[in-house]
Amino acid sequence: MANMAKNTDFSFTAIEWEEDHLRIIDQTFLPSREIYTNLNNAGQVWEAIKHLKVRGAPAIGIAAAYGLYMGAREIPDSTFESFYLEVERLNEYIATSRPTAVNLQWALDRIMTTLQAHKDKEVSELKEIMLDTAKTIHQEDQRLCKLIGENGLEVISNNASILTHCNTGGLATARFGTAFSVIWHAHDSKKLKQVWVDETRPLLQGARLTSWELKKEEIPFKLITDSTAGFLMQQGLVDIVVVGADRITANGDTANKIGTYSLAVLADAHDIPFYVAAPYSTIDLALEDGSEIPVEERNSEEITKIGNKEIAPPKTKVYNPAFDITPNRLITGFITDKGIIKPDYKKNLQKIVEETSVEV
Amino acid sequence: MANMAKNTDFSFTAIEWEEDHLRIIDQTFLPSREIYTNLNNAGQVWEAIKHLKVRGAPAIGIAAAYGLYMGAREIPDSTFESFYLEVERLNEYIATSRPTAVNLQWALDRIMTTLQAHKDKEVSELKEIMLDTAKTIHQEDQRLCKLIGENGLEVISNNASILTHCNTGGLATARFGTAFSVIWHAHDSKKLKQVWVDETRPLLQGARLTSWELKKEEIPFKLITDSTAGFLMQQGLVDIVVVGADRITANGDTANKIGTYSLAVLADAHDIPFYVAAPYSTIDLALEDGSEIPVEERNSEEITKIGNKEIAPPKTKVYNPAFDITPNRLITGFITDKGIIKPDYKKNLQKIVEETSVEV
Repeated sequence: MANMAKNTDFSFTAIEWEEDHLRIIDQTFLPSREIYTNLNNAGQVWEAIKHLKVRGAPAIGIAAAYGLYMGAREIPDSTFESFYLEVERLNEYIATSRPTAVNLQWALDRIMTTLQAHKDKEVSELKEIMLDTAKTIHQEDQRLCKLIGENGLEVISNNASILTHCNTGGLATARFGTAFSVIWHAHDSKKLKQVWVDETRPLLQGARLTSWELKKEEIPFKLITDSTAGFLMQQGLVDIVVVGADRITANGDTANKIGTYSLAVLADAHDIPFYVAAPYSTIDLALEDGSEIPVEERNSEEITKIGNKEIAPPKTKVYNPAFDITPNRLITGFITDKGIIKPDYKKNLQKIVEETSVEV
Repeated sequence: MANMAKNTDFSFTAIEWEEDHLRIIDQTFLPSREIYTNLNNAGQVWEAIKHLKVRGAPAIGIAAAYGLYMGAREIPDSTFESFYLEVERLNEYIATSRPTAVNLQWALDRIMTTLQAHKDKEVSELKEIMLDTAKTIHQEDQRLCKLIGENGLEVISNNASILTHCNTGGLATARFGTAFSVIWHAHDSKKLKQVWVDETRPLLQGARLTSWELKKEEIPFKLITDSTAGFLMQQGLVDIVVVGADRITANGDTANKIGTYSLAVLADAHDIPFYVAAPYSTIDLALEDGSEIPVEERNSEEITKIGNKEIAPPKTKVYNPAFDITPNRLITGFITDKGIIKPDYKKNLQKIVEETSVEV
């Protein structure tokens, strides 16, 4: 992977292309064990995404792209049409691993578009183009994440205590993460006092994964329950809140992990700046505002069981939305690869999306 | 227990005096199993409180009072002075079971005061007086809890969705509970649509205990993670928030389970009424405002482990306050045994405490 920029300052790589296979940290063993596993074909990639060995929207997209290539390289060289048909079937198969992950389909579609653009080429060449496109998606994510972190420094005061939510780090992306990249760069620039990590129920991505990453990077932090955030703010112990995003609509309304909206309201009530860190690809101009985002409800057992332990009575009914929607008025700004975006969001978000050209 | 008012409408009794011993639900088995256990002497009461078989401030006070009697009845009849000395030692012993529980010491002290008031009596009579005082404390709590529930109806609109926090029900009190009593009476009066129960991390009293009680009473409810409350309010799905209290200061500032303050801020931001349900005995006029309440921090493992499962990396630092403080301005009113208390809290809280005469 000679053309992949290495940054030795960031202490691990959750997803890496090694000559002819993908190597990932198996996130299901975290935080107790750091186990790497090789994925050698499309089936293994499907299984790894399905069973959350790799998670985080950008990381899933990257894995899927390599997975599509590894599936395609096994198809015998023939005509473009028959090759493309086979790849389309692979695409559909890989997409079933996490049907709701937007980045997954985005990455797969990007490869399909690239194939169409090169339909005059030999199939053997097309396979190499697929691998190159997967690497491009991978590299681009690294670059965007680093830019987000660097750009974020502008809004971090000296000796800052930053509160964050869920996992937005090197596990969820190619490297550095989104909100986590801002934290990493603040620490690297000696602007950080400490991080407050909320555990992020129900799946505990804060406690399990963000804590693990912060330990790894030797960044000082304390873990809290989600409901402790307000009390921290009341005591003046939080200088800024920085979170990631699942989807940002044209007017700046933002879908993110459940609990984000509560943090935004609490930050507003305590006059604490609230920032959303995300790359341009998270902005969805097709949706006008948050009311158009469908709210995914997940299964009850995420709340009623922890591991194999039942923590609620049998047949307890649950309301378990995977994310919530924070209205634009509660967002102080967006930290993006193109810099800090302030209101008017409708105008300024559209501008950065239009400025971005994607390599094909 | 002929003199103990029975209410067959409330479906269980977590703590009951049976002729010569105490019978409790062992809460450590909930919600998976409903197991009753007999406590026959002071040592067994100490052990039950220590290991959270009985929990909830009023319930602990009641158990401790009976425990003190069961210890005293084994002391040979002699002079008042030597008997009183032995009871004092028992008092100190029982108090070590949960050193931070205010109601525990309050109940024990009330018995000591009663003994002093009857120092001219025979020791055999004093033992009976101790049992009677324990029963009085027990009965009084039942009566206050029922009054809180009945009085609460005044602030519950028809077809109300009530959000509550932690466990404030029949497990934590003699019967009916505090905030739970309001819910129970709202359901009994057909004013309730449903209850939203937040799980209440870290110890999950909402998921484990309140859910169990609501099932038992056949009251419709849904369980949510703590961080989902804001999103529910945003969608207009919460009509009123009712919580309990650990301590209410003279100006109405209220200490309660961690997460209460966040709910109060969220309710305020959504113009949702926020009520605190508590008996007069929770009002502590000795403290002027919330800044005088010491904040107890509990151990890290409550957050980093669930059951025996580690959910954070080894040596993760934690901030784990047991409760937070909600300022009076965020409290719409107090639901008490004396009725609904509205501002001016300083004047009106003092008034209800002064009106109350305790039997000795």
